Parts: sequence; structure tokens; C-alpha cells
Amino acid sequence: MNNYTITFEPGNRKIIVPEGSSIKEALTSAGLDFDFPCGGRGTCGKCRIKVLEKNLDPTEKELKYLEEKELLEGIRLACQIEIHDNITLQLNTEKENTHNILKTSTERSYSVEPLIQKVYTAVKAPTLEDQSSDFKRLKESIMLKYPNCKAVKIKIDALQDLPYKIRESEQSVTVIIDKNEIIGVEQGNTTNKMLGIAFDIGTTTIVAYLMDLYTGKELAVSSSLNPQVKFGADVISRTSYANQNEDGIKTMQDALLKIMNKLIDNTVEISGLSRKDIYAITVVGNTCMHHLFLGLTPRYIAAAPYVPVISETIELDAFKLNFNINKAGKVFVLPNIAGFVGADTVAVVLATEMDKSKDIKLAIDIGTNGEMVLGSSKKLVSCSTAAGPAFEGAQISSGMRGASGAIDHIRFGEALTYTVIDNEKPKGICGSGLLDIIACFVEFGIINKRGKILSPDKFTNPAAKAYENHIISYDGANAFLVVPESETSHGRPIMITQDDVTSLQLAKGSIAAGIKILIDKCGVNIDDINEVLLAGAFGNYMDPHSACMIGLIPKELESKIRMVGNAAGTGAKLALVSRSEYEHSNTIASSVKYVELAAEQSFNKAFAKGLQF
Amino acid sequence: MNNYTITFEPGNRKIIVPEGSSIKEALTSAGLDFDFPCGGRGTCGKCRIKVLEKNLDPTEKELKYLEEKELLEGIRLACQIEIHDNITLQLNTEKENTHNILKTSTERSYSVEPLIQKVYTAVKAPTLEDQSSDFKRLKESIMLKYPNCKAVKIKIDALQDLPYKIRESEQSVTVIIDKNEIIGVEQGNTTNKMLGIAFDIGTTTIVAYLMDLYTGKELAVSSSLNPQVKFGADVISRTSYANQNEDGIKTMQDALLKIMNKLIDNTVEISGLSRKDIYAITVVGNTCMHHLFLGLTPRYIAAAPYVPVISETIELDAFKLNFNINKAGKVFVLPNIAGFVGADTVAVVLATEMDKSKDIKLAIDIGTNGEMVLGSSKKLVSCSTAAGPAFEGAQISSGMRGASGAIDHIRFGEALTYTVIDNEKPKGICGSGLLDIIACFVEFGIINKRGKILSPDKFTNPAAKAYENHIISYDGANAFLVVPESETSHGRPIMITQDDVTSLQLAKGSIAAGIKILIDKCGVNIDDINEVLLAGAFGNYMDPHSACMIGLIPKELESKIRMVGNAAGTGAKLALVSRSEYEHSNTIASSVKYVELAAEQSFNKAFAKGLQF
Repeated sequence: MNNYTITFEPGNRKIIVPEGSSIKEALTSAGLDFDFPCGGRGTCGKCRIKVLEKNLDPTEKELKYLEEKELLEGIRLACQIEIHDNITLQLNTEKENTHNILKTSTERSYSVEPLIQKVYTAVKAPTLEDQSSDFKRLKESIMLKYPNCKAVKIKIDALQDLPYKIRESEQSVTVIIDKNEIIGVEQGNTTNKMLGIAFDIGTTTIVAYLMDLYTGKELAVSSSLNPQVKFGADVISRTSYANQNEDGIKTMQDALLKIMNKLIDNTVEISGLSRKDIYAITVVGNTCMHHLFLGLTPRYIAAAPYVPVISETIELDAFKLNFNINKAGKVFVLPNIAGFVGADTVAVVLATEMDKSKDIKLAIDIGTNGEMVLGSSKKLVSCSTAAGPAFEGAQISSGMRGASGAIDHIRFGEALTYTVIDNEKPKGICGSGLLDIIACFVEFGIINKRGKILSPDKFTNPAAKAYENHIISYDGANAFLVVPESETSHGRPIMITQDDVTSLQLAKGSIAAGIKILIDKCGVNIDDINEVLLAGAFGNYMDPHSACMIGLIPKELESKIRMVGNAAGTGAKLALVSRSEYEHSNTIASSVKYVELAAEQSFNKAFAKGLQF
Repeated sequence: MNNYTITFEPGNRKIIVPEGSSIKEALTSAGLDFDFPCGGRGTCGKCRIKVLEKNLDPTEKELKYLEEKELLEGIRLACQIEIHDNITLQLNTEKENTHNILKTSTERSYSVEPLIQKVYTAVKAPTLEDQSSDFKRLKESIMLKYPNCKAVKIKIDALQDLPYKIRESEQSVTVIIDKNEIIGVEQGNTTNKMLGIAFDIGTTTIVAYLMDLYTGKELAVSSSLNPQVKFGADVISRTSYANQNEDGIKTMQDALLKIMNKLIDNTVEISGLSRKDIYAITVVGNTCMHHLFLGLTPRYIAAAPYVPVISETIELDAFKLNFNINKAGKVFVLPNIAGFVGADTVAVVLATEMDKSKDIKLAIDIGTNGEMVLGSSKKLVSCSTAAGPAFEGAQISSGMRGASGAIDHIRFGEALTYTVIDNEKPKGICGSGLLDIIACFVEFGIINKRGKILSPDKFTNPAAKAYENHIISYDGANAFLVVPESETSHGRPIMITQDDVTSLQLAKGSIAAGIKILIDKCGVNIDDINEVLLAGAFGNYMDPHSACMIGLIPKELESKIRMVGNAAGTGAKLALVSRSEYEHSNTIASSVKYVELAAEQSFNKAFAKGLQF
């Protein structure tokens, strides 16, 4: 399968995706905030974009919603385009958009003062009257030009280059500075060549953002499956692997670093830039990913009392992790809050500025674990719920990840309708589809309060009548046939079993209980919550109405739900382009209170209640 | 040839020397301040020491000076003992001596606050009520015990060890701290195991001092020839090698580091300690050695305007230089003053506290270059003179280093008498012998004011009569036969040629001129100088009277001359055991004014005058 490059304009942002991907997938991977009002089903005609280079044949749905004139101009519906070639797209066809990348998930201002700085300066030539050392003359010239510059130290590698560089370039050099230390010296003026990479390491997916540290703009995005998946699907099984294999941590760290270097390669390739101009890397991830990235044991996260090794930022030389970037490059790792609330959650708070807001906000990032933060500038409390992998399609009989062939949305109208990613024949259901169908079950009374799939004779809602023939018997219990075998790509039926409902019930029950406990711990009422921020891939795909219908999120909050894209990635990018944001992450990590649900007496009661539909 | 260990008591200081070495050589290598009033010729009987283990047969000279009772007690003359086995010696037989090693060359007080510190602490176990990270709990426990401890950061290697170490040892660990960073964590209490190495890298010789950072005491010394000698005898020829060979700097740096590791091995072997307990290394050397040690080009030191790359302290990880010590180990390099006044001179000032003294002092360190510092707490000026290698025996027809078989002292009495190092048959003359004989030439009128060796018919001093038959003809000029071929070990005559006199004349002339210029620049009179401190091996061997007789040092200062041993090495040791001393070295480097003799108009006149005898 080929990979193709999608370039988004304005902003010249590039992302590499496999052939057959949808624009919607690409936008989500890129963390771009683009609105699909109907969820990408081609039923609203609102996701207009402009194809700049190619004219592809319009789909039936496009012919329905777009005028002849629009089609001639290259206007298309984003949800309808499949990628089979490199393509350039104009995202905003209505008004000029400065397209500040960091506004993609959350509109916020920040100042560009990157973790690594470059200073161009002319160094005085030495004379018999001024025999000051090269380093002293360099420092004096920097201070003269930038009185606030704090560079007082120099790394040995930079010092070794210094005498040559200043003499090769008639004493004019660009100095690379990390806080108070000169880490590199380059000939001439290279201040406009200063790149950084922000990494968001998820349990399943790794995303790399190539940033221009000079302008603060994003240049390219690349993502990949986390190669540690082969050592275990979730953090608990990876911890077991680390505990049970002598070099387990090293093995998983190496696998991760290899892919991270590959992602760096991808981003510089698509942007036509050089790895050697990358000086800084920021990293966020859940606490286990954070630990495995740094070669720290996750052993004591996984067992009570679940403590991380470190909960502060830590910096190290990029060469120590074999990163193939500028030899002076540095890695900046954001801090963790607790064993199960990691640097990714800190990054979400950083991106959304929840800690600076007077309004009370609830941020939810659902993956294998559901991490939540609730509060305002006064107080923030967080927790993590072992949601299990149901929302990622794992341990669901017909479940799959949100990839080609996955049913991602389902509606019960007069008949059952669904949409499939990439418009293929369906082969399974992903998290958002699962959420939708369970919501339909609840709405139509196909399951009862306890989550039991009812036999048709127990249906009380007349509307459910139309779905009687979907109820089948499977493994000694009722099941719901979603797609018969004749209509699937693999010739097996797609269905929801009683076990599937139970899996989702446990997942939503623990998240609902987590929200309940946080509300109590925060000392607020549900009505006090001004906004619910859904972060992460699943959060951005799922239907808020469905989430409220099944009780994942309290119904009262439905109108307050806002998708914030990959806020963790946004936080990593912010930290990269702004040292004060990076440093502020420590304040967040130490001030967000962590609630250990396992230690809460009220959790079991809340969980039991949360299980109900 | 075997190596043997000499242990000096009290203090349990050890040094390894080759078989046949003299105690005098060993004391000098060890930087020990032991007095040989007659210069080690066995003519005063004052260098009494006690041999603790062995009873060796006394020499004739010992029988002459020592009483029967003394000999039975093991009392011997240090100058008479040759090493053919491991031996333990009590240095001070008269009064109890606490033998603080740092008092060997200069009596001064300092506080033990080593560059690397160790803190033993019990870390609270985590609970569900306190889920703080391992690092946070560690910091809290340190702060509780040592409120002034500034450790706020931690190195990734230490962090990787931390979770295991605190749990393996019931939460009690020893933390290794470099200023504000934790660089290592060890199980249990290891605070008494904390070693450091101070290196003095000379152009010809490298000395390593193993120090106990816990007590501040010296534990062992080992020295070696600088392996870079094969790339050039002096700093100028080594710079040429660096310039002319692509990997010249790397080649010389590697050769140096290999020997330095070997010296570390020696010191831990003789002291029965472990390399893994060495955490800090300090390094001093002239600017060229400093640069080659750090892999910095010496190119711009050697050509006008002679600037060094750096004139401040610099720190780096020991593993970056492949030092085989504790993996957390750090290297601290002292600063240079100028291209030809290096970290070794800074260390001399540090050791002698010239910069804190109300008295005006002149420190002279003579090697291939003669580095000098003059002044007091008010003002210090320094210069370097290209003395050439005459004082090291190089480029002298019968010259050699101060090793076995070298004539080290010569007297013209009724007849010519001389002493040979190790009492062997002579094979050459070393610097101190050369100084002596030229002084005799001056005293007896065998050379004239311009340095010409006179024919016997021009002798005006009747005492010179006895030496008439020493004057021979060589290469078209007069020469002085010191030892006829029949009495030398190699069967060739040892003589002083006119060229030899000229070489020494140039060397002493430039040093004398340097002293003159410094006195002018400092704005003092010669009588204002309270003390002349002679540092380094040659300075400690040479006869002050001879030095003044030939005009190397002004006659007015003869009574003020004091040998300070290897003051550069002492400075390196002080910096290792005391961070404030280390940091103070930057103040010294930046405040000592450097005088570039090449730029001084008065230099030529002073030099011309200095050439005269």
C-alpha cells in the first residue's frame, strides 16, 4: 500500500497517510479542528473544502449538495474524498484564516519563546590588545546584543566547534542556546532554521508534529502505531512484559525510539527540511509510556500504591536516546500527575488552560484508560478509570480500531443505517459505532436498565418493533445482528453480543463513576460545570448525544460538550514553542490533585449506579 | 623493570615508582614537602626518615651521620635509599604530624566541601494516601535532613536506578549530588566511599592524585610521562602536529586519556579501592594541554594574537571522555588565564593564595615555558616566557631529563664535584645541574658577561686555574668537559658547549626579562617583593643560589625564595575537595592580568639585559 502526502492550506501543513485514507482521518491525525456537522456521513453538505491541484470525480452525495459552479472551482465535501494520490487542500474556503496551528484544538494565545533559542551575533576578532578567549568574546557580543540573554555555560561539543566557526565566517555565528547554556555554534546566520518535534506517545498511536521554532508554526505531522503493541495491548500487559523479561524495558524503549526516529524522518521528508535543524523534542504520553520512553520501570505504577518514578519535567541530551537530530539536540519530557494520570493529561490541561479558567471545566480523554480532570483556576482534581479497551474496539466480538471498514456511526431510524470508514464493505464496529448502537438500544428499549438484551416479546417501545428480527440467539443469550454475513467484507456477521454490552457497560460505568467522584471531590454541582472538553481520537469521533444517552457523560452536560482534538499533542507543541508553557507544566503536575478511585469508599456505589442504563 | 609501592606515614599516602628510584624522586612526584638541606647529596645528614618495615644495609654516608641507636630504630637518610621492594616510611620522626596532604606545598586552610557530595537519607515508603513519585519523596527526605541542599534536578541514569535502589534497601539510599543535580543513587549508606582524582597535566609529565572526598585526604599518587611527547616535545610542536594531521587533536587527546585512565588504575590499585567510587576529576595543565585534553584546537594559541578557546571552568560527564570511573562521574576543568598562562598557573595562585595576600609575591613555574605571576590581593600580573626546553635538559648537547644517571648538582670547590640521580655512573646533565655549572662558570669567570666560554689564558679569577684543563675545543669554539668519557655510563664525554651556554642564556634571559616586565607592570619595586615561590619539579630541584648567580632570579630575592612543590597539583586537589576553591578559580582566571611580552616594547631591552651574566 502506498503512502500519500496531504498538504493543507493555508499554512502548508503536511501529513502522510496510507492510500485509501479519508480526509476526516487525516484531519484527526493532524489534530486539525475541522467541523463535520453530520459526523462525516455526507448528509449535511457542510464540510466544504477546496481541492487545489486535482479534479476528482464527485460522489453522488457531492452532486447532491454542491452546485455546478462550486464543483468547477474545486469545491468538494471533505467527508467524501478518498486519498489515492498526493493532494493539496484549502481548508477554509470562506474567510482568510491565519491558521495558527496551535489553534486547532483550542483557541488560545501564547508567546513564541521556544525551548531552544538561536542568536546571531558578530564576535569581535581578537587582537594583541584584547586577547580574551573565544568563548569570552562570544559571550560579550551576545550580551551586547541581547542584554537579557542568560547564556553563561557552554557544552564541550559546541566549544570544540567554536574556534573554527567564528573564523570560518568572519566572526559571525549563530549560537544555539538552551536556557543558560550554549549547546551549539553554527557558521553565519541560521536563525531561521530552527525546528522542533513534539511527540504524543499513546498506548496505541504515536504522533509526531514537526514545528518551526522560529515562527511557532506546525510544518508536518506523521503518525504510527506504537510498536510496543506487540508486547501487550494495554499498559498493564506492557508492565508485565517489562517485569517478566530481563531486558523488557530496554526492548520496548528501543522499539519506541526506532519508530520515533522514523516519524522524524517522515516529517522532515514531507516538509523538505533537514533533521540536522531539529534541536528540541518534547514528549507527552501516559505515565507508563512516559516511563518506557525514558527507560524507567513501570513496575511500581502497576501495583498499589501506584507511584510513578518522577512527576516533574526532565531534560536529557537527544543523543543519549539515539535521536537522529542535531547533535546538540535536547529532549524535554513533560511531567506526570500520578501513576495513571500522565504527561498527556498535563498537556491537555496546558492546551485547554483549564487551570487558568474561572469557568469550571471537565476534560475527558478516553482511551484504554479514561483520564479526567475537573475544575477551574481554583482547584483541579483528576482521576483515571480502568475503562478497558472496549472504546478502542478491543474485546468486543465484532470490534475493531477506527480504520477502513469499521462501522463508525449507527442510527436507528425507520431502519438501521450506518456509515463505514472509507465507504468500504463493513468488517467490524469501532468505538464510536459501538457507542451509537448501545445508545439506540437504550433509546428503543432493546436493553433494560441492567444492560440485558431483551427478547422481542419484552420490548415495550413500539418503535423497537422494527428491530425484532435483529435479535438472534448467540452463546446461550440474546445478541443483536447489525450486519448480516452477506453484506460484510469477510462474510461473517457483525453483531453485538450480551458480553459486548457488558464490556461497554463496565467501561462507561467506571467513567461515569469517575465523573461522579470528581464532582464530589471538587465540591461542585453538575450544573456548575460550564464545559465538557473531549480530547483524543475517540473523543473526537464519538457522538455526544450517544455518549449522554448511554450515561457515559451525564445528560445534563450534553449541550456543553466540545471536541478539542488531540489536546495532548497540542500541549506538547505549546511546550516546544514556549518555554514558559513548558515550565508551567510543572505547576500543573504538582497542583492537580489526584484522586485514587481504588481508595475511595464511595467508588463502588457510584460504579454500581454508573453501570445502569 | 618492576614497580614498587612506597607508603608514606603518617597519612598512609602511597606512590608507585619504578625499581631503583630514589626516595627523593618519589617525594617530588608525590608533591611532598620534604627538606633535603644539602640537595640530597648525603652531605648534611638531615633528611632523617624512619623505615617501618625493612632494614636495609646503611650506606657509607648514613654510617657517617647516623648513630648506632638510630640505625637500630630504622632511622635512615632519605637521600640514600634506593627502592628495590615495597617499603613504608615514616616521614616525620620528630614530632607528631597530622600530615594534611594539602599542606605539602603550601600551608593553608580550606574547608572540605567536595565538588561531589553524598547524602544518606531514608525515603518514606509510598502509600495510597501519599502517592508522591519516588523522586519527589526522595527530594522531600533530603530537604528534611539537609534544608540547604539544593538538589532539584536528577540525571536520567540516576532516575532509572532510583525505584529499584530505594526498594532494595528498605528505602534508605545514598544520593550523589553535583551542585543542584542528583547524579547517582546507591543502596544503603555509602557516604564514606567517595573518591576523586586531581590531574596535573604537564607537557612532559602527568600526575594523578587520588583523594578521599569524605575526609579531604590524599590517598595515593601516580605519575607518568605525557604520551603526547611522541608528537612533539613542546606545546608548539604539538600544535603543529594538531594542525597538520587531520585527526591530530583526537589522536593526542586519546593518547592522553588512555594514560590518565591507567594512572587512575594505579592509584586505586595501590590504595586497594574501587574505581567505581570515584565521582569527580579535576584537571589543570597549561593552556595547550588543557585544550588537547578537551579536544579543543590549540591552533589559535600558537599564533598571534594567541587566544585560548575558553578561559573559564568547564564541566562535563566523565563518560564523554571515556573515563573508567563511576558512571555518574564528572570532570571539572580549571580555567586558563591566557594562551600561554593556563589552568596550572591558576592552580598555583589558588594553592598559594597569592590573590588573597597583602604581601607581594612572585610565583615562578619553569618548564618549557616559564610562567610567572606577581602581585598581591591588590593586583596580579602574569606572563609567559618562551624559555625553551633548556631547563628540561632538551637541546643541550649532554642534556637529559632529571632521571637516573643525570648529574643534578655540580659544585666547583677545590675540584669539580657532582651528584648523580640514583648514584649511577653519569650519562648527562639535567636542568638543575646545568644551572649549577653555569653558576660556577659565572662565579669562577670561566664565561664572560656575554656568555662566551673563555680560553684559559683569558681567565682572570685565580680560582679558575684549577679548571683550565677542562676547557676543550669543540666545533670551532671552546667547550667545558664535565666528565671524561672514561667515567660516563655510555663512554661519551659529558660537556658544556658554547651552544649549551647560549641556550641557557636565552632561557634565563627571557625569564629574567619577564620578571623585569612584571615588576614594571605591577608598579612595584624589587624590594617590595616579600616572597618568591618556586613551583614545579624543576623549581624544586634547582639551587636558588645558582639561579640567582646566573641572573635567572634577581640576586636581591635570593633570601626570599621558597619551594612550594607541585603547587599546580595542589591547586587541582584543593578544587576537588572544595567547591568554593573550584569556583574561586574563575575569579583568579578573570582577575589576573596577562601581559603579552611580544607586545611589550620594553621587552627587547629587558631581554638583552637579561642575557648578560
